Amino acid sequence: MTEPSAPLFSPEEFRKYGYATIDWIVEYYKNIESFPVLSQAHPGDIRASLASSPPEIGESFETILNDMDRIILPGITHWQSPNFFAYFPSNTSTASLLGDFLSSGLGVQGMLWATSPACTELETHVLDWLVDMLGLPEQFKSTSAGGGVIQDTASSSAVCAMLAARERATNFEMNLHGGTGKLVAYTSTQAHSSIEKAAKITGIGSKNLKLIEVDEKFAMKPDALSKQIKADRQSGLIPFFVCATVGTTSSTAIDPVQEIGTICKQESVWLHVDAAMCGTAAICPEFRFIHTGVELADSYCFNPHKWMFTNFDCDCFYVADRTTLIKTLSVLPEYLKNAATESGAVIDYRDWHIQLGRRFRSLKLWFVIRHYGIEGLQFLIRKHVALARKLTEWVRADKRFELAVEPVLNLVCFRYKRGDAFNKELLERLNKSGRLYVTHTVLDGKYTLRLCIGQTNTQDRHVEGAWSEIRETAEKITLRNER
Amino acid sequence: MTEPSAPLFSPEEFRKYGYATIDWIVEYYKNIESFPVLSQAHPGDIRASLASSPPEIGESFETILNDMDRIILPGITHWQSPNFFAYFPSNTSTASLLGDFLSSGLGVQGMLWATSPACTELETHVLDWLVDMLGLPEQFKSTSAGGGVIQDTASSSAVCAMLAARERATNFEMNLHGGTGKLVAYTSTQAHSSIEKAAKITGIGSKNLKLIEVDEKFAMKPDALSKQIKADRQSGLIPFFVCATVGTTSSTAIDPVQEIGTICKQESVWLHVDAAMCGTAAICPEFRFIHTGVELADSYCFNPHKWMFTNFDCDCFYVADRTTLIKTLSVLPEYLKNAATESGAVIDYRDWHIQLGRRFRSLKLWFVIRHYGIEGLQFLIRKHVALARKLTEWVRADKRFELAVEPVLNLVCFRYKRGDAFNKELLERLNKSGRLYVTHTVLDGKYTLRLCIGQTNTQDRHVEGAWSEIRETAEKITLRNER
Repeated sequence: MTEPSAPLFSPEEFRKYGYATIDWIVEYYKNIESFPVLSQAHPGDIRASLASSPPEIGESFETILNDMDRIILPGITHWQSPNFFAYFPSNTSTASLLGDFLSSGLGVQGMLWATSPACTELETHVLDWLVDMLGLPEQFKSTSAGGGVIQDTASSSAVCAMLAARERATNFEMNLHGGTGKLVAYTSTQAHSSIEKAAKITGIGSKNLKLIEVDEKFAMKPDALSKQIKADRQSGLIPFFVCATVGTTSSTAIDPVQEIGTICKQESVWLHVDAAMCGTAAICPEFRFIHTGVELADSYCFNPHKWMFTNFDCDCFYVADRTTLIKTLSVLPEYLKNAATESGAVIDYRDWHIQLGRRFRSLKLWFVIRHYGIEGLQFLIRKHVALARKLTEWVRADKRFELAVEPVLNLVCFRYKRGDAFNKELLERLNKSGRLYVTHTVLDGKYTLRLCIGQTNTQDRHVEGAWSEIRETAEKITLRNER
Repeated sequence: MTEPSAPLFSPEEFRKYGYATIDWIVEYYKNIESFPVLSQAHPGDIRASLASSPPEIGESFETILNDMDRIILPGITHWQSPNFFAYFPSNTSTASLLGDFLSSGLGVQGMLWATSPACTELETHVLDWLVDMLGLPEQFKSTSAGGGVIQDTASSSAVCAMLAARERATNFEMNLHGGTGKLVAYTSTQAHSSIEKAAKITGIGSKNLKLIEVDEKFAMKPDALSKQIKADRQSGLIPFFVCATVGTTSSTAIDPVQEIGTICKQESVWLHVDAAMCGTAAICPEFRFIHTGVELADSYCFNPHKWMFTNFDCDCFYVADRTTLIKTLSVLPEYLKNAATESGAVIDYRDWHIQLGRRFRSLKLWFVIRHYGIEGLQFLIRKHVALARKLTEWVRADKRFELAVEPVLNLVCFRYKRGDAFNKELLERLNKSGRLYVTHTVLDGKYTLRLCIGQTNTQDRHVEGAWSEIRETAEKITLRNER
């Protein structure tokens, strides 16, 4: 065997190419506002630029890095642009990127405590910190009967919550024998699609997920929930799970967790609170109202990878009773047995989620919290909310527009008072301009624009620019229509 | 509001701290052989070094980076050490680390084609490349009715395969109405624990996963499978899923996919092939025998994050019929609707797995394949297999030891001929020495040491050193016992 032309892994080549990569990212952020926020590529454009077959012989790193500009950038929708106002943000920071990079560099796989004690213990520690930072109840701390774990996304947290609830409700029988089609779950009509997906995945069935109606603020009606649970029980069904949302995707509506939780306790039904987007706001005491009643929850999650400057993926999932979760997901084959696990003195996070293997994700979270401090995080969140309030006032002051609902935190839902077709065209034109990226939803049956302010670098001028662009584009469409 | 003391995200601070981070990783790899491979930390050691509360005010990056040495390194089990022979590897390379870092830097979230066309199209393209590189059947290409997607781990692939199989078997009824407890799945007694976990998660029930016996090479017996399926059908159960393993965790046994696949076709049962560890070997034509019969599979997965120099996480999951998978996992709420999706001309990978959000993981895979070329990848895999064969000969030549089974590729399973207690002590002493890390399994009821050679930088001297250490340690225990 002869050595191949491509070099193996050497520290010095890593330094050289590493610096070049850092420089590439620095340039990218310097120029980020010059790219159209939403990629203007057409289907197939990117594939057409790629080599049809993989190379037989290795290529130089310079060649590969050059293709980032030539091939990849035209196909990028710039989530880190300060003009990205679409969906919910997926923001990041220097501290997060470098913490995550160190995690890749160490390359540890933390499925067991023993396979890197620091990976497990830092995670437990930082998730306990976050309980204090967000003012969450003590039941979610590792020092109680509960505890937290990092999942990839809130979708996976929803699956795990539903599984633990399912097993609690069936005395761990469904894990063994499969479903009966009698378990019933509940969430609001405004809940995230991941709840329906979880109902399918876990063998509950989407028809057994009842969507409870909402009030004028798009928050779940507790009375309707209570009534539905009672009716289902009378029909011989087994209510077992409720998901309350703290910040729905369409409008960041806050379900009344206190009332919902009281019903869940009375009915012995598992309460999961999905605060994926809005949970982060609770770092500021003035926004902690969103969590009223969360001490009644069996599980809770929020995503630092949305609004807490921590790069994707990072969802923090908490349970009040870790034993149920672990008993639900634990499988211990011979090849994973080890003295530390047998001692019972350690946490093995593989039993807390779907996957076996896991990255050292707490490192980036630790870096973010230490880099900003509580003060720094509060500053940025308050700034985003203040910008959203400014925009809200502008929308309110312009009689051609209307707010679809009163904004709660950093998401503004609004429309031009000319019907769906007009607003649809407005959205398409805005996104085609490349100057900003906004998305839509439907509220009260009406097409609605959503503008969410949560990107790390968004400043006043970006929101001012967005509002000008929105008004000018609406004017252009109006003029054309009147011609 | 006053600006916080911690800086916000600025390109120049990113350059400065980025270079420092690169330097830290370079030093880490230079010194990696000086650390004990298995962390010698005791439960609670790492937490005891961490600040009890999160900081109010941000800290300097220098302080945080210093804590990597002070707090984190003592709690690291060094998966990237060339003396790591435990479990299966989770290796990496310069190309992978930097490709992954660029993906974090871009910070895009590829849930939809529109949210970054390059993220979707590069993934489809590279997964098609890999079909050719591994000599997999055309049915797994995006140009056929099938296609590939990157999942985090083989555990998640197993869940998705089982879900699609479940829905195909129930005409998409279980998604709606939940389980009946009548579906039955099959795998061998040697299959990975993730298959049992998947049976629990998907509402099938672990009692409805039948473990089929294995032959003297620890591979599934097709006759036993066929008999069990027929018996279950006679009892009114519905056989729906078989998982064949190409490279079991205990001993890299290769299930006879050809025979198993023929049975699955006759019985109209979904065949999933789990080649998480060994699939990579098929880059070398001489090792493609492991995939004989894989054209009979409905789904297949292998992990570039194990043996293909791609940092965790990266599992490639293929299906022969993407329509079934997509129909099983698709949920389309209003806020995700967009013109590209409606055109039907694009892939939206969110419908191919449990999560909604997704990282740009194909970037690292593209970097790895281009950096090494097929030739470079073949070189490293052949080297690992050659080293394992060398070790096999040494074990065979030393009459005090025995091979537990004839090695297939890069995993050597062996024991000292003195019973379980002796081998258990041998393993503990080896790992306590810090000079290498090996793990164990049980084969034929006997405690067995597993030594897997797959770390990127492992050279002859590391395997020679490991074998000396094993022999010397065994001699020391023997001497003490005889004293």
